[in-house]
Amino acid sequence: MPTLSQRIQQLHASPIREILAVISKPGMISFAGGLPASDSFPDLQLGQVPKTWLQYGASEGEPDLREQISFDLCRAGLCCDPSQVLVLSGSQQGIDLVGKLMIDPGTLLALENPTYLAALQVFRFFGARFVALNRQHPDQNLGQADQSALCYVIPTFQNPTGYCYSQQEREALAAACQKRGVVLFEDDPYRDLVYDLCERQPICSMMQSGQWIYQGSFSKTIAPGLRLGYLVASKQLLPHLIRLKQAADLHSNRISQYLILQALQDPKRAERISALQAGYRRKRDTFAAALQQHLSAHAEWELPQGGLFFWLKLQRPVDTGLLLQRAIAKNVAFMPGEQFFHSPHDGQSYLRLNFSHASVAAMDEGLKILRKLCEES
Amino acid sequence: MPTLSQRIQQLHASPIREILAVISKPGMISFAGGLPASDSFPDLQLGQVPKTWLQYGASEGEPDLREQISFDLCRAGLCCDPSQVLVLSGSQQGIDLVGKLMIDPGTLLALENPTYLAALQVFRFFGARFVALNRQHPDQNLGQADQSALCYVIPTFQNPTGYCYSQQEREALAAACQKRGVVLFEDDPYRDLVYDLCERQPICSMMQSGQWIYQGSFSKTIAPGLRLGYLVASKQLLPHLIRLKQAADLHSNRISQYLILQALQDPKRAERISALQAGYRRKRDTFAAALQQHLSAHAEWELPQGGLFFWLKLQRPVDTGLLLQRAIAKNVAFMPGEQFFHSPHDGQSYLRLNFSHASVAAMDEGLKILRKLCEES
Repeated sequence: MPTLSQRIQQLHASPIREILAVISKPGMISFAGGLPASDSFPDLQLGQVPKTWLQYGASEGEPDLREQISFDLCRAGLCCDPSQVLVLSGSQQGIDLVGKLMIDPGTLLALENPTYLAALQVFRFFGARFVALNRQHPDQNLGQADQSALCYVIPTFQNPTGYCYSQQEREALAAACQKRGVVLFEDDPYRDLVYDLCERQPICSMMQSGQWIYQGSFSKTIAPGLRLGYLVASKQLLPHLIRLKQAADLHSNRISQYLILQALQDPKRAERISALQAGYRRKRDTFAAALQQHLSAHAEWELPQGGLFFWLKLQRPVDTGLLLQRAIAKNVAFMPGEQFFHSPHDGQSYLRLNFSHASVAAMDEGLKILRKLCEES
Repeated sequence: MPTLSQRIQQLHASPIREILAVISKPGMISFAGGLPASDSFPDLQLGQVPKTWLQYGASEGEPDLREQISFDLCRAGLCCDPSQVLVLSGSQQGIDLVGKLMIDPGTLLALENPTYLAALQVFRFFGARFVALNRQHPDQNLGQADQSALCYVIPTFQNPTGYCYSQQEREALAAACQKRGVVLFEDDPYRDLVYDLCERQPICSMMQSGQWIYQGSFSKTIAPGLRLGYLVASKQLLPHLIRLKQAADLHSNRISQYLILQALQDPKRAERISALQAGYRRKRDTFAAALQQHLSAHAEWELPQGGLFFWLKLQRPVDTGLLLQRAIAKNVAFMPGEQFFHSPHDGQSYLRLNFSHASVAAMDEGLKILRKLCEES
């Protein structure tokens, strides 16, 4: 075997990959992925894409799309200029670009524990060390991490916990990043999947000075197969990110940019999002009732106010990897919690359950099976 | 300014970006980009994309597309299994993934001098040191670079020189990589843009043992705006590359995968490619005649047997950056040669001229202007 890079030793086979391979099996009830409901996808007017859009395009993204994104962000409270927007090939790409921009081997990174496992994977790959963010006292944490260059958070309907930061928590984090000179990287893919009244103001909008990167996704409200997201960044960071984007894939798919722009400018957009929210809210409530019925003796959880996941802590220590194997044998899949933690052994006995993908009948059936397996464990 | 990663200091503003910004100006005659002719794009049956393709997909790519790619490669002489194919978001992404896989700060990399500037940019960014490959005696060169892990080449209608390796040169490089235990990374975006009879067998197909990565693009024969390419790799390397792909953007755009698969399976595909080749051959010949008429007193060049570029060496030393500024003022753009060299100061007095994009009338006009500027320089 030839000599590979040092960093490749930090890139392990992802347990999600093996789970995803299994859940496509017919008859499988999957609570594992973060898949939006397929019936939520809009009708795309593919026939209308002009042929000129098949040519190479700009690394930054299409001007009209950048303008629309900045307009939408201003309405969400994050005022920015279209020139601060960088269109991404999905928001996973933003994590890769920010990793390249900020992380050397040994760089200290403050982030929630648990957090999005594919972000941990990328940051670890570039050599980051992790320190857990305490959202009640972010100043103290960023103080511990006083060499830390970067703070990564998913403040709105977090993956995997579903937690949504209060206004006070948002302000405290913005203030702490400003005070400590830490770059805030706010990942916000779930903000439009909101089911109850709650605070969603981007934390980046609360930073009067300092450096920040905010990113969003079209995978949850339009369609993941189009692989389109975006980031906006403070003016000093953006030129670096545009160069990194160009080096990564020249520019994002232009057909997707065209279709997403159409979907964003559709007069029925607000109506469509409301219907999406209502459908997911119903699914969440149904799932919550089924959880209460089947698993209240075995686990505890909070009702998520948005997003796609319930986060369960089992009341007795359980090897969730083994539980998953047994569940898959009975055609049920879920995400074991370990891989969402900075150190997997901190995260025994947690399960992440997705409620958006399975049908109502399948939910009940799947949770019954999980109860049985918990009883036998 | 916060502390950025060490590697970001190696990522400079690309001179192409500034040139590309200028060439979209109306009336500009551009010999600068590597843009395929817009009238070469096929009619895409966008209306037929099934809605299920809007969901998340596999990191490796769609099974049917991987199968089609492996089938086409077998016909080109590179026998591989569909499981060895990884669909990419454009072949620029392959360069990023291989950089991540192989290059640490200080890693020695053997590659042609000059070569594709955005490959140099990515490899430099990950910290590579460069050694020039001598294609007549690759063994000697890879010997000099005996710690070198990787050899990157564009053997078929190279960018920028247009050179196509002979069979002997191909065999010698394959043998040298095998003997030295060097991973061969063969970049082959232009292979279908062939205008004269010449050897095009993938060098990777000549390696009986050892590790290799071969990549291709759909940007030149279908459409760059779809941002789709692929790589195939020897079996030990592929699992790492799939994980890197997943970490970079989860998977490639599925609409593009659907459209490209349709284009590859179109019964009129061979006919369309022949027409494309005939059209570009005519353009190349017209460009060659105009070059002969206008620039034979000022420069020398070889007739490219394929690809998109003429590579000119000016007979007197000329500051090509300054020449470009003057040309742009007269509405003509080209690529100065410096940035294609490992050290830009090795590459004074070269120009890369694209012949596929400008109209026949514009070619003549543009080359006349370049002659005048050469006379004045």
